[in-house]
Amino acid sequence: MGRYFNLAVPVAIINGATICGPVEGKGPLSNYFDTVIEDNSLGQASWEKAERQLMETVSKNVLEKSNVRPEAVDIFLAGDLLNQIITSTFTARTMQIPFLGLYGACSTFAEGLAVAALLLQNQDISLCLTATSSHNSTSERQYRYPTEYGVQLPPTAQFTVTGAGATLVTNKSSASQIYITAVTIGRIVDLGIKNPYEMGAAMAPAAKDTIKTHLEKDSGGLSSYDAIYTGDLGEVGKAIVIEMLQQEDINIEHIYDDCGTMIYDLDQQNVNSGGSGCACSALVTLGLILHQLRTKQARKVLVVSTGALLSPTSYQQKETIPGIAHAICIERKEGSE
Amino acid sequence: MGRYFNLAVPVAIINGATICGPVEGKGPLSNYFDTVIEDNSLGQASWEKAERQLMETVSKNVLEKSNVRPEAVDIFLAGDLLNQIITSTFTARTMQIPFLGLYGACSTFAEGLAVAALLLQNQDISLCLTATSSHNSTSERQYRYPTEYGVQLPPTAQFTVTGAGATLVTNKSSASQIYITAVTIGRIVDLGIKNPYEMGAAMAPAAKDTIKTHLEKDSGGLSSYDAIYTGDLGEVGKAIVIEMLQQEDINIEHIYDDCGTMIYDLDQQNVNSGGSGCACSALVTLGLILHQLRTKQARKVLVVSTGALLSPTSYQQKETIPGIAHAICIERKEGSE
Repeated sequence: MGRYFNLAVPVAIINGATICGPVEGKGPLSNYFDTVIEDNSLGQASWEKAERQLMETVSKNVLEKSNVRPEAVDIFLAGDLLNQIITSTFTARTMQIPFLGLYGACSTFAEGLAVAALLLQNQDISLCLTATSSHNSTSERQYRYPTEYGVQLPPTAQFTVTGAGATLVTNKSSASQIYITAVTIGRIVDLGIKNPYEMGAAMAPAAKDTIKTHLEKDSGGLSSYDAIYTGDLGEVGKAIVIEMLQQEDINIEHIYDDCGTMIYDLDQQNVNSGGSGCACSALVTLGLILHQLRTKQARKVLVVSTGALLSPTSYQQKETIPGIAHAICIERKEGSE
Repeated sequence: MGRYFNLAVPVAIINGATICGPVEGKGPLSNYFDTVIEDNSLGQASWEKAERQLMETVSKNVLEKSNVRPEAVDIFLAGDLLNQIITSTFTARTMQIPFLGLYGACSTFAEGLAVAALLLQNQDISLCLTATSSHNSTSERQYRYPTEYGVQLPPTAQFTVTGAGATLVTNKSSASQIYITAVTIGRIVDLGIKNPYEMGAAMAPAAKDTIKTHLEKDSGGLSSYDAIYTGDLGEVGKAIVIEMLQQEDINIEHIYDDCGTMIYDLDQQNVNSGGSGCACSALVTLGLILHQLRTKQARKVLVVSTGALLSPTSYQQKETIPGIAHAICIERKEGSE
């Protein structure tokens, strides 16, 4: 099982910044995002350069919003889906902040915040910037087929979210009303799914494992949570995680949703089982969930970003798909206005 | 510039474990490695499965050497060169330890130990396992051409080390005589090199930046070090880093060497400018350097693993190669036998 950490020093989320693509801009959460782009290519010569511009934009924006200069940030933690995480490394080159590259597939959003929160227990570190991104056209061509081919997808497939999210976090307690108070670092769970069009099913057992560990170790238990969100299980994986937890007598259905099913209108938008990609849980958390916490629609939520740790080489070599999930507990400070 | 951390709690290196391929086994450091394999394929059906076996072997071996069960380890931090770091994720599946995936190209060895050392400042965490690997045949075919093609390489090219290293570290002070006492997290430095056969030149400016930062912030300064090692600059990058530091009036030449030039006999073995890959600095550090510290041939050394953060996509799109370097200062405890 995963490893739960109750943070001795709560980590304040100073700000988040978000940008999304045109499809996400037509979805139900559009109004919660800082910027909606109209052209997936952003006028760049390649999809990869477009994705880099997404991450650079949010990384700069979250610092500007917070009136913080890059030189003041101790560590920049970032990861993305592209081979050798080039979106993150080129953004790190632009930002010129000491850099730690991460890879957790679509779990990278929570991985970055969890590592930052644990590093910020060290009083020599006071400010961390985390970022992640995904782009439908870079992912599809890297993992499956170029979008230009127009390949038909099965209904279990998911639609990679185009967008990016960046978060500025600190251990200075007056910086915000919103805090990361606990994290769970997940372990790999692999129940033998081999089909790269069934990533929701591949990741659901890891989500179940991490949610169970987190709720068992959290002294408040399930009843202390207003909401639990998984990262990008889609409709298929969402149903599996509900059922797997029910089998352990943990009933989360009344407060549970999946960012991949929330970010699109699944009836109207042609996205099959729902959204995926590092940006999926980043956008929903930094857009909708932070808003709900700030406006007192929620006091305590659990965000469980999920990752399918396959590569095109591994599945062509007939390997199964290892899943992982990391959880971050975000709370509004008691008594804050 | 990078960010230097003097560790309030020194982090003990309980043990390292190493395994290397047949070419490294014919090199001058062969006797310092735990295991030398005779067949690069390890009898596996693919090079990728062989690389995974290398990392799994050292991860298990370092725990066995230390008489530690996997369940006792708080966090496993690993990264490698393969797309989506599949060597690390499949090893994490085997180890069943809560997992953080890292990517820093060939700097991943120091990145893993630096992150572990910073996490271990948190008293809720007491044991971390780090691992990294590289394999000549997986790297060559992923980044350049399959080795089976027999492509001729220019003299500035480097030879990817086949091997893996794992390290078990703790904040329990009685566990060892050897400690990580300070780390520097590097920033990206990119002076515009575009040629993937000139990675030494691409990474040298980052190594210079991190070494300069570390030596300026370390109160002992350059004179307190017995040795400084870069990860895998090769002969070309080694000459550049010496010259760049001389221009800043920092003369390290008398105590400096590069793991990439040490691991092979450059005159006799056909490796061009020297070794590269995540395993290069891992093998030399966990093999030779730990031995030198234990046997009092050295008291304080700086290991600066260097990474070239390119991808085949990025250089085909005419991008330059961002370099990064992370440093770990390793000391033998004063007064220890």
